Amino acid sequence: MPSPPTHRVVIIGGGFGGLKAAVKLRRPSVEVTLIDKRNFHLFQPLLYQVATGQLSPANIAAPLRSVLRRRRNCRVWLGDVVEIDVKSRVVRLRDGAEAPYDTLIVAAGSRHSYFGRDDWEALAPGLKTIEDATEMRHRVLDAFERAERTIDPSERKALLTFVIVGAGPTGVELAGALSEVAWHTLKHDFRSINPSEAQILLVEAGPKPLEIYPEPLIEAAQRDLARLHVTLRTNTRVTQIEPEWVTLDAGGTIEQVHAHTVLWAAGVQASPLGKQLAAATGVETDRAGRVPVQPDLTIAGHPEIIVIGDLANCAGENGKPLPGLAPVAMQQGEYAARLIDNRLEGHQTAPFRYRDWGSMAVIGRGSAIGLLRRWQVKGFIAWLTWLFIHLMSIMQFQNRVLVLIQWGSSYLFRSRSARLITGESQDQRPTQGGTP
Amino acid sequence: MPSPPTHRVVIIGGGFGGLKAAVKLRRPSVEVTLIDKRNFHLFQPLLYQVATGQLSPANIAAPLRSVLRRRRNCRVWLGDVVEIDVKSRVVRLRDGAEAPYDTLIVAAGSRHSYFGRDDWEALAPGLKTIEDATEMRHRVLDAFERAERTIDPSERKALLTFVIVGAGPTGVELAGALSEVAWHTLKHDFRSINPSEAQILLVEAGPKPLEIYPEPLIEAAQRDLARLHVTLRTNTRVTQIEPEWVTLDAGGTIEQVHAHTVLWAAGVQASPLGKQLAAATGVETDRAGRVPVQPDLTIAGHPEIIVIGDLANCAGENGKPLPGLAPVAMQQGEYAARLIDNRLEGHQTAPFRYRDWGSMAVIGRGSAIGLLRRWQVKGFIAWLTWLFIHLMSIMQFQNRVLVLIQWGSSYLFRSRSARLITGESQDQRPTQGGTP
Repeated sequence: MPSPPTHRVVIIGGGFGGLKAAVKLRRPSVEVTLIDKRNFHLFQPLLYQVATGQLSPANIAAPLRSVLRRRRNCRVWLGDVVEIDVKSRVVRLRDGAEAPYDTLIVAAGSRHSYFGRDDWEALAPGLKTIEDATEMRHRVLDAFERAERTIDPSERKALLTFVIVGAGPTGVELAGALSEVAWHTLKHDFRSINPSEAQILLVEAGPKPLEIYPEPLIEAAQRDLARLHVTLRTNTRVTQIEPEWVTLDAGGTIEQVHAHTVLWAAGVQASPLGKQLAAATGVETDRAGRVPVQPDLTIAGHPEIIVIGDLANCAGENGKPLPGLAPVAMQQGEYAARLIDNRLEGHQTAPFRYRDWGSMAVIGRGSAIGLLRRWQVKGFIAWLTWLFIHLMSIMQFQNRVLVLIQWGSSYLFRSRSARLITGESQDQRPTQGGTP
Repeated sequence: MPSPPTHRVVIIGGGFGGLKAAVKLRRPSVEVTLIDKRNFHLFQPLLYQVATGQLSPANIAAPLRSVLRRRRNCRVWLGDVVEIDVKSRVVRLRDGAEAPYDTLIVAAGSRHSYFGRDDWEALAPGLKTIEDATEMRHRVLDAFERAERTIDPSERKALLTFVIVGAGPTGVELAGALSEVAWHTLKHDFRSINPSEAQILLVEAGPKPLEIYPEPLIEAAQRDLARLHVTLRTNTRVTQIEPEWVTLDAGGTIEQVHAHTVLWAAGVQASPLGKQLAAATGVETDRAGRVPVQPDLTIAGHPEIIVIGDLANCAGENGKPLPGLAPVAMQQGEYAARLIDNRLEGHQTAPFRYRDWGSMAVIGRGSAIGLLRRWQVKGFIAWLTWLFIHLMSIMQFQNRVLVLIQWGSSYLFRSRSARLITGESQDQRPTQGGTP
C-alpha cells in the first residue's frame, strides 16, 4: 500500500506567527519544518522587563522543541536562512543545508530600524532579542555602578542620565521600568549616589506619546509618566548620537544632552529576508521592508508562499497595513494553517480578516492604559487587565507560574532578582575611574 | 566633638568567604569596602544546574548590593583588582581607583586549572562563573541541535559524545545532569536522533570517583552512575584535547575518542592575585597558587592582611590544607570579622578551627551521597538532605522560593525551562551541515 502523499510545509521563524502556524498544522500527512536562528520562542512583549532586571530571560522564553515535542509531524531546525529559492522551492541555510517545500510560510519578523543611521546601533541599543535585553540591562546597571565610583560631578550626571528614543509602547514601558529601578529597586543600594537623582528623558518626534490611543488615555499616560519622574519631550527629534552626547532638535531649538546611556525604541524594519523574497517573486517591499500580500496572505503569483507577521504588509479594514503586533501575527499564523488544510481538502478559504480585540500599554508598576473594543481602561485596573492577559498568553505552564511569582515578589518587595551584570557588553567605552 | 576613629576594611571578592565577612562586620566605626569584578554573589554549588539548563543564572545569584543594602557601613565597588600595595596599604583597581585599608581581607577565590595546558581551555570549558555555565549550556544543547541536522553518521556520533574530565563532585554532578538531559528532558524533542544515544564518558585519572568519601558511598555512587548510563573510566588520563578529538591514556593503553563536546572538571588553581600578594609579603604560594596563612588566617609578618577561602592554604587538624569548600570559606569569613572586632576591642582571638559538618555530592535526580559527621547517607534520602541544605543556604528569600518551584516542576515534569541557547559561544568550530 502506498503511503499517503505528504505535503511539506517549511516555516521560517518561530515567533508568534510562525509558531502558531506550526501548532495548528496538525494533519499527520503535513510534514512541518520550523526553522529559526534561536532554539526558543520569545515572548517579546515582556522583553523590557528583562532589560530592566525584573525577569530572567528564561521566564519569557519557551524552547521551541519543548512547545512542539508532541507534534510528531513537526521538526525544528536551528539555522540561519540565507536564501529562498522560489523556482526550486527550496530554503537554503547558511551552512549549506536545504529544506524543500510545497508550501512556505515566511514569518521572519522585524528588527529595530535606525532610519539609515546604522552607526547609532552600537551607541543606542534597541530591544528585539534576549541579547538586546541583556545588553540594555548591562548598560543601565553598569551606569549606576560607574556613577557610584566616579568623583567627577559632570561624569556622574551623565552616567545618571538615560535617554530613551521613541515614546511608543516600548519606549514608555522602558521609561516607566527604569524609573521604578532608580526610585525603588536601587533605593538603598548605593553610598555615594542617590539613584533617584537619575534623569529619564523620553524623546518623541511626534506630538504625543502612545499616539494610537484616544486623547483621554494619552493624558492619563502623560500624568503617570510625570508621576514616575519621566521627562517627556514631544515634537523633538534626535539628530545625532555620539558617545556620551545626544543632540536633540525641538522645532529648531538645538540641545546637547550629556548622557551615558541611550536606549532605542523608535522604529522597526522588516527582516532583510523580505527584500530577497520580494525580488525573487517580482513584488516590491514597502518603506519598512514589508512584503505586500494578497487577501489570503500569499504573494501575488505565488500561492505557495504565505507571508505573515511583522514581515507582511497586509491591508486592514481601513486600508492601512495592519500593525506589527503579536495578535495580528498569531491570527495570521492560524489563518495560514487553515488555508493549507482547506487547500488539501479542496476547499476555498475566505480572505484573512484581523479581529482587533484591542491593545494595551504599560506605563509603570500598577499603571497602564488600554483600548479593549470600545472600552477605555486606565490606571490600576488597566494594569491588572494587562497582567492577566499577558500571564494567560505566556505559552508554557511552568513559565507562567514562575513569572507570576517573580512579578508578585517584585511587586511586594520591589526587588529585582534578575539584575545581574553578566557577559561582555558591546559597550566598549572606557571607564574613567578616580580615587574617591 | 571628634567623630569616632574609623577602621577601614577592604574585602577583595564577594564569594562565600568575602561576603560572610562583610555581613559580619557590623560595627558602625568599621568602614567596609567590598570589591568584586561582578555585581553579584554566586551560589557556585548549583552552577552545574545552570550549565545543564535546569536553573537560570538569576536563580543562583544574589546582587551584592541587595544583600548588603541595609549595611550602611558597607559599600560595594565593582572593579578589577590589579595590585595590592602592601607598603602603602592600598588596593589598586584596573581603572586607577584606589582603596586604602587598615585591614585587608583577600578572598579572591580560584579558577579551574588546566595543569599547564591552558590551550585546552577553549576546547574544554570549566565551570566557575555564570559565563562558564552558559557557555557549557550553549555547547551541550548546540551539540544535540547539530546532531539532529547532520547526515554524516560519524559526525553525529561525535556530536552525541560528551567527555567530562575529572570525577570529583563537579564532574559527577555534570555527568548525572547530562544524562538526565539526554534521557529525559530531550526525550521527545528530536526527530532524526534519539538523545539517549548520547554517550557520556566520565574520565578520572585516579582510581575512583569522589575519592574523599568512604568506600561504601563510592560504590553506591558508581552504581548510580551506571544506572544513569554514564561510562566511568578511572585510572585514565587525558593526554591531548583537539577539536573533535580527545586522547585518553589508561595505564599505557592509548585511545582516541571522537567527541565534539569536552567539559573540564579536573582541577582548580588559586587566583593570580595570590602570587602577587605572596611576592609582596615575602611568602611562597603552594603548588595550587594558594597563600600560606598563620593559625589566625593572617600572612606571616602582616597581621593586617587576612587571606580566606580558596586562596588560603590553611592547615586543618590533620595538617593538610583545608579543602576549597563553601563552608570553609564562610567559617573563615566569620572568623576574619571576629578577629577584627576583637582587635578593636583589644581582645585576643583563638586560632581558626574548621568545624566540619560533612559534605555531600549529587549524582543525579533523586540520588546523592553524603558524609555528615559520622553518618553516611546515600540514595534518595541523601538527595533530599542535599536539597534541604542547599535550599536553606541560598541567600535570598526570593531566590529560594523560585529555585524550589523550578526544581519542583523540573522534578515532576522533567522539563528544563532554562535551556536557552543565547549569546555568542566561544566555540568557533564550523558546523558541517548537510541535506537530510
